[in-house]
Amino acid sequence: MINEIKERIESKKIFRAMAAHNPLSAKLAEEAGFNGIWASGFELSATYGIPDASLISMTQHLDNTRAIAAQVKVPIIADIDTGYGNAVNVMHAVSAYEQAGAAAIVMEDKKFPKDTSLLEGGRQDLVSIAHFQGKIEAAAAARRTPRFTIIARTEAFIAGQGLEEALKRAHAYAEAGADMILVHSKAKTPDEILSFLDVWESKTPIVLVPTNYPELTEARMKESGKVGVVIYGNHAIRAAVSAMQEIFAKIRRDGGIHNIDSRIAPLKEIFRLQGLAETKENEKQFVR
Amino acid sequence: MINEIKERIESKKIFRAMAAHNPLSAKLAEEAGFNGIWASGFELSATYGIPDASLISMTQHLDNTRAIAAQVKVPIIADIDTGYGNAVNVMHAVSAYEQAGAAAIVMEDKKFPKDTSLLEGGRQDLVSIAHFQGKIEAAAAARRTPRFTIIARTEAFIAGQGLEEALKRAHAYAEAGADMILVHSKAKTPDEILSFLDVWESKTPIVLVPTNYPELTEARMKESGKVGVVIYGNHAIRAAVSAMQEIFAKIRRDGGIHNIDSRIAPLKEIFRLQGLAETKENEKQFVR
Amino acid sequence: MINEIKERIESKKIFRAMAAHNPLSAKLAEEAGFNGIWASGFELSATYGIPDASLISMTQHLDNTRAIAAQVKVPIIADIDTGYGNAVNVMHAVSAYEQAGAAAIVMEDKKFPKDTSLLEGGRQDLVSIAHFQGKIEAAAAARRTPRFTIIARTEAFIAGQGLEEALKRAHAYAEAGADMILVHSKAKTPDEILSFLDVWESKTPIVLVPTNYPELTEARMKESGKVGVVIYGNHAIRAAVSAMQEIFAKIRRDGGIHNIDSRIAPLKEIFRLQGLAETKENEKQFVR
Amino acid sequence: MINEIKERIESKKIFRAMAAHNPLSAKLAEEAGFNGIWASGFELSATYGIPDASLISMTQHLDNTRAIAAQVKVPIIADIDTGYGNAVNVMHAVSAYEQAGAAAIVMEDKKFPKDTSLLEGGRQDLVSIAHFQGKIEAAAAARRTPRFTIIARTEAFIAGQGLEEALKRAHAYAEAGADMILVHSKAKTPDEILSFLDVWESKTPIVLVPTNYPELTEARMKESGKVGVVIYGNHAIRAAVSAMQEIFAKIRRDGGIHNIDSRIAPLKEIFRLQGLAETKENEKQFVR
Repeated sequence: MINEIKERIESKKIFRAMAAHNPLSAKLAEEAGFNGIWASGFELSATYGIPDASLISMTQHLDNTRAIAAQVKVPIIADIDTGYGNAVNVMHAVSAYEQAGAAAIVMEDKKFPKDTSLLEGGRQDLVSIAHFQGKIEAAAAARRTPRFTIIARTEAFIAGQGLEEALKRAHAYAEAGADMILVHSKAKTPDEILSFLDVWESKTPIVLVPTNYPELTEARMKESGKVGVVIYGNHAIRAAVSAMQEIFAKIRRDGGIHNIDSRIAPLKEIFRLQGLAETKENEKQFVR
Repeated sequence: MINEIKERIESKKIFRAMAAHNPLSAKLAEEAGFNGIWASGFELSATYGIPDASLISMTQHLDNTRAIAAQVKVPIIADIDTGYGNAVNVMHAVSAYEQAGAAAIVMEDKKFPKDTSLLEGGRQDLVSIAHFQGKIEAAAAARRTPRFTIIARTEAFIAGQGLEEALKRAHAYAEAGADMILVHSKAKTPDEILSFLDVWESKTPIVLVPTNYPELTEARMKESGKVGVVIYGNHAIRAAVSAMQEIFAKIRRDGGIHNIDSRIAPLKEIFRLQGLAETKENEKQFVR
Repeated sequence: MINEIKERIESKKIFRAMAAHNPLSAKLAEEAGFNGIWASGFELSATYGIPDASLISMTQHLDNTRAIAAQVKVPIIADIDTGYGNAVNVMHAVSAYEQAGAAAIVMEDKKFPKDTSLLEGGRQDLVSIAHFQGKIEAAAAARRTPRFTIIARTEAFIAGQGLEEALKRAHAYAEAGADMILVHSKAKTPDEILSFLDVWESKTPIVLVPTNYPELTEARMKESGKVGVVIYGNHAIRAAVSAMQEIFAKIRRDGGIHNIDSRIAPLKEIFRLQGLAETKENEKQFVR
Repeated sequence: MINEIKERIESKKIFRAMAAHNPLSAKLAEEAGFNGIWASGFELSATYGIPDASLISMTQHLDNTRAIAAQVKVPIIADIDTGYGNAVNVMHAVSAYEQAGAAAIVMEDKKFPKDTSLLEGGRQDLVSIAHFQGKIEAAAAARRTPRFTIIARTEAFIAGQGLEEALKRAHAYAEAGADMILVHSKAKTPDEILSFLDVWESKTPIVLVPTNYPELTEARMKESGKVGVVIYGNHAIRAAVSAMQEIFAKIRRDGGIHNIDSRIAPLKEIFRLQGLAETKENEKQFVR
């Protein structure tokens, strides 16, 4: 995946990834024109009704990633949190995600168990740089092909450690073999991120997740010439939740579904997304 | 669950179940005031991007049902399609769903592999009445307590076999031990269902799924004094899909998320649904 | 896989596959020099303590097959029973097993749900030839590469239908695109199978499972020049069961493990099979 | 489970648990007269061919525990290693294991990711006493009933920290609410453990795992009046491995299975363990 990203940056394009919590949301993102899928740990945790704090297991996230891979053609960037333990766990994970059909993993430099990054007052302790370099090298050693892209995510800003630490970590991770660097921030403005981009002189592309500073648009990211990927990290589940809340309330108020059909996808649209037409073709041809 | 339903009918109340495709949508349904959750095979198939045609495995549906049970207090009605095979498979399934925390199962009288009921021109072949009675008796023999409710679903109308066959089957299934009868119809008006209710004299409560005839409101169902449960069979996934399509398109058009926040659930709301406050309390108390 | 088999037949060799019920037993089979692994539905059902009668789900068997693929280099022949339903289910399964790392599938011409083949008095009803040809064609259409090998298994002898029916089915399945034909028999002597081999003139290799007629050795199979694969279908689990029974009884009798160590694998041997040495190397290199 | 253990100690009996790696081995242990099942992380890791070092996920171990619970009546003691993270992870785990049908959990005071205890030169770092007390209190807070038994396992001896530390930890864990204390040792003689028992004056029962010091028989444990449970931690998989190695080698040498049947369990015995007779009864009664 990394080669595609580098070409994009040169031609002033950006790779847009949308969060998905199941194969269906991934399919919708692909149909909407997103270039890739963010197999989000946050969204998947949310579908289970539990916090994004190393509670869902690798099996649960991996199974979901594999199921997504069976439904979309665009690359999948798998969110593997801290790598499920130490460098040995990382190698175990990388083998499994590559086999499952992911194109990339994002691994973050927080301690296990992690806490959600955008939570006010969350636990945000970082591992040492040396420790995390070991994890990156382990990931690189475990992948079967160098096409499988390793994205190192530094939570230095999230942990309140400032620009210098963020830069130091980003450089150290690139040196250790990371193909891209994700710099996360929970500031309400893009200033922190922009200050980072200003001084980032490495060729290693940057990945951004602008949840908290939406004014940082794709256009502004492209201008920098340094951002390879933008991840919209939680908008699928947030859209789904508000719609279900609204429709559920209306059905309860109305005592029925007689005023609802114009506001939700018709059954036919769900059938289409399920690939029913193709299945019916197969049925006609092969079921005797 | 069946006792609660009977009490409700006597006091002119109806049990409203909303479809869910994961624990989060179930939680939203519970919060909206629905009395129970429909662990829908159609919705789960849709999240995998595959047709509702006996393609998802019992393991996939059971795991989802169990995860839902961990998040809601209201009863869960598990949609087990045709029972995953013959009466022996039914026994295997009933044990597993009861252990997983479901309060009831719905089992339908179609041949395996089934086809989606509301599809125009789908395969809708029924098994014999004797065969299906055997499955109902097997389900009753396999449950640990009679509280675990067996709902027999006849697809006689779906298969185009008319009122007489629907009635004959409904009576035969009640005789075999079904606690409730689900009568499904894909007519665009409730006439077929109303004609059934008119002549249904048994004490066994009826379950309805008014997807195709929304004008049959809860008020009208209650009037009959025969309907115990209404299932809204696919409105969670349809609401989610239309919202994601809309928001994804807007993000693509805008080249960013700067115009999106007012239209989707805020992060804080997702945190709330994940039970983050309680987790933080536990963390404070127990993590040293 | 099929090309390797044909070459073997020409050089008077046979491909030996041993049943496995988990990655460890597969690894032991590979180390013992077997050429491939039989990802057996019978053995997996047995580990769950349930009959081999379409009760374990595709998810359970597929997960096991994938886990085996992560541990062995030799080809895996996946036992998919009847294909989990009709031709549409077969296509769903073939995609999944190919992605999971299987080299071949074996699909049998019995009705779903199936019964164990070697059981006296089991239900052994066959589907029509046309129906099964549709399933074979569907499997061929669903695979990504023709290297993925489709083995059609006829249970004509198991169903008591004699040589003529077995031959007719074998020819029809080869015509429909099966790469190999598995002919199963529960006779206590190899005569039935030998009579089949005698008159089999097609180039399509034959697969045998000599559980019930052990006197049919590999040497005799090679002589025929027609047998490509021998599958030892249940010897891993049978060996494991008798050993556990013996050792468990001894520990109970002795009231301890003081007389047991010479009769079971030492811990070090288990560590070796777990790849502990390699993990410790990785730990030394990458965990900082 | 704890009440049963205390009664046993008073009547000079010991609760014997045998390791299992799947439902079948658990069933064999129950049939052999063991009083409970040790749902071993070591054995399960071994069946996956990977080290016992926090690599298998909670999902994998939990699914196995649940499947075992469906097949045996005796209590299951679930090996949850370090609790899959911090005290919040422990609460998540305890809820899940209790729901899955376990009667008890064993949780150890090592750092995550753990290393196998009996490995020479393994990483054996302990968490602080206060940290582990938090985990025990969290486990107690998360269980639904006090019948669900919490066993705290100290690896003080394994970590080479001597008797004083082992005692200090054992007392601290009992104070924090542990129902029993498992004291592990990798010494080649029982001296270390016996010295511990000598000075253990608390009423909290002790659990032992005599893998490395087999001379410590059940008789000697009973004498102490302090040992409630003996766990045979890995003898199922070790028995299975040596038997498969032997039989696989013989089949390879012989070029067939003609000399094997007397040395392995007959098919009929596997059928019996699969509950085939009962299934056939159900089939006769319910499949029409």
